[in-house]
Amino acid sequence: MSTAPPDVLLIASWLEPELVDRIRREVEWIEVIHEPDLLRPPRYAADHKGADRERTPEEEARWRAHLARATLLFDFDQTHLDDLPERAPNVRWIQATSAGIGQFVRRMGYAERMPATVFTTASGVHAQPLAEFVLLSMLAHVRGLLHIQEQQRRHHWERFAGSDLEGRTVVIVGHGSIGRAVGLRAGAFGMTVLGVKRTVRHEEVSDPAQLNANEIHAMEALPDLLPRADFLVLAAPHTDETEGMVDGAALARLPSGAGVINVGRGSLVVEPDLVAALRSGHLGGAWLDVFAAEPLPPDSPLWDMPNVVVSPHSASTSDGENARIVDLFIDNLRRDRDGDPLRNVLDPARMY
Amino acid sequence: MSTAPPDVLLIASWLEPELVDRIRREVEWIEVIHEPDLLRPPRYAADHKGADRERTPEEEARWRAHLARATLLFDFDQTHLDDLPERAPNVRWIQATSAGIGQFVRRMGYAERMPATVFTTASGVHAQPLAEFVLLSMLAHVRGLLHIQEQQRRHHWERFAGSDLEGRTVVIVGHGSIGRAVGLRAGAFGMTVLGVKRTVRHEEVSDPAQLNANEIHAMEALPDLLPRADFLVLAAPHTDETEGMVDGAALARLPSGAGVINVGRGSLVVEPDLVAALRSGHLGGAWLDVFAAEPLPPDSPLWDMPNVVVSPHSASTSDGENARIVDLFIDNLRRDRDGDPLRNVLDPARMY
Repeated sequence: MSTAPPDVLLIASWLEPELVDRIRREVEWIEVIHEPDLLRPPRYAADHKGADRERTPEEEARWRAHLARATLLFDFDQTHLDDLPERAPNVRWIQATSAGIGQFVRRMGYAERMPATVFTTASGVHAQPLAEFVLLSMLAHVRGLLHIQEQQRRHHWERFAGSDLEGRTVVIVGHGSIGRAVGLRAGAFGMTVLGVKRTVRHEEVSDPAQLNANEIHAMEALPDLLPRADFLVLAAPHTDETEGMVDGAALARLPSGAGVINVGRGSLVVEPDLVAALRSGHLGGAWLDVFAAEPLPPDSPLWDMPNVVVSPHSASTSDGENARIVDLFIDNLRRDRDGDPLRNVLDPARMY
Repeated sequence: MSTAPPDVLLIASWLEPELVDRIRREVEWIEVIHEPDLLRPPRYAADHKGADRERTPEEEARWRAHLARATLLFDFDQTHLDDLPERAPNVRWIQATSAGIGQFVRRMGYAERMPATVFTTASGVHAQPLAEFVLLSMLAHVRGLLHIQEQQRRHHWERFAGSDLEGRTVVIVGHGSIGRAVGLRAGAFGMTVLGVKRTVRHEEVSDPAQLNANEIHAMEALPDLLPRADFLVLAAPHTDETEGMVDGAALARLPSGAGVINVGRGSLVVEPDLVAALRSGHLGGAWLDVFAAEPLPPDSPLWDMPNVVVSPHSASTSDGENARIVDLFIDNLRRDRDGDPLRNVLDPARMY
């Protein structure tokens, strides 16, 4: 038996009480601090930022005492983003609720300012809702949903022929957990799935079915794959390599009428080039959940384009999300206790 | 070798020339008459009704001569619906391009007026596009697409939580080829699929996976299944038994927030009851491709309901449809030559 003092886990963003109870039940070797009244209240299910909420001086003092004691954090503390390293000097591990925290951690300088702290992402938790969004987008595109709705608004009945998802090809950039989840579902529709990854292992190329794909390629192959893409799905993180990778030249290589679906990061796309390709009619449509600037500025031309759907960075958010994050977290807490490698450790070099 | 004169096949609705060539190549034992200039031109891909087109007297005479000679028809002749039995007395078999021809054949009295003629439907051809429409509807419903679009119209960025298709239950009424195609895809999303059929075989109940379902039930069980249905999918034909089966009492048994998707026939639903259940908020939404009256009358309340999508009976129509119908037809022509049972023979008693 270890004689080290028990870990102190501070729940630092809003979580359903029954999920906190589950953590308490399943990791009884840890002290769990949960004061819902000190947390920013969620504006919607699985809102990890929360609405503004002033603490009284007494409440703030209590919160700071918790931070000072905590060795583990569930999520970043939105009320002390700037001084987290100083306020929480004992924290050795933070479990995030987002998959794409690399740029945030870099911007805050956490890796340098908290060199002994491990960051684990929520990567994988959002794969299923995002895959559902991607399939929704592709189905709506081929079956002409926006056309159907336009006719409906005019009370106009006119039969038309849609097209089929079956037989179409989707190229997935960043073929990780999201890509595998998309591939599983796209396969059931008879689509061809081409996955593109940064790091490709030999056995993934020879047996792409293990990643629910028909082919797996390295990032360098992307230009050659684009002409085959009825759909280009962006699911890669924001890194120096991916920034601006989808520019006018890349879009021009897509076949006419292709659809672009971005559930990765807005910075992957040169947005003016995307707008131009949509305006010219070269692209058939775009389903976007992420943007170069968020919230999408009110004067962005994307809002009013007839072949664009603007989703407010919510495609990964679902009322089932927190339960999945807690599943992951409990698994990680057990691994931590047993000395096994944690899942989803942020690589400070690659930033994902 | 048979010494009977060869069959004469008249292509009676518009078909892509390359598909007619395919028929000619693959069933070379049959004389194929195809005069595209005498056919009503399609208004969209796979339009089997066609736009109005006047024939000159000389053209009409030629057409009537074709009808008089024909022993096989590809599709009903939209220009001689009323007097088809008299104009085409030698026709022994008509391959339709629609799945739901039972009520039409009954209304025209063809079964009685052409007692020696076999009718085969296009059942199964539309399963894949209809399954895509059903999955599109369910995904859009849980993920809040109509909400996203409403916010977009207002240039309003506000994050929200959708919900997941994973874990939801769909009840499919009329679990035939469409139901199997829905079930295959719904299974990949982690849904539970309950199929309801008119005629249930023992091995289907004990091994529902053969129909891509988790459970298979007889029609009588439907009232007990409705409370479990996050989605009710109607894919049954219009028969005396199915007419009006989805009434206020049935809708009331659905859980609050459920979605109704109708790709069968409008007559299955008591439309005013559906409107009432949508207005009251009991139903979460309806995705409708078929209606009690088509075209949907301009003053129907369904047009403007915020939680309803009105599709102009086009969910089964796709630019890949005619190729699939020709696949089926060629298979049937070979079966006919070999004396094997034809696929999709219309049962004049059940009318599907």
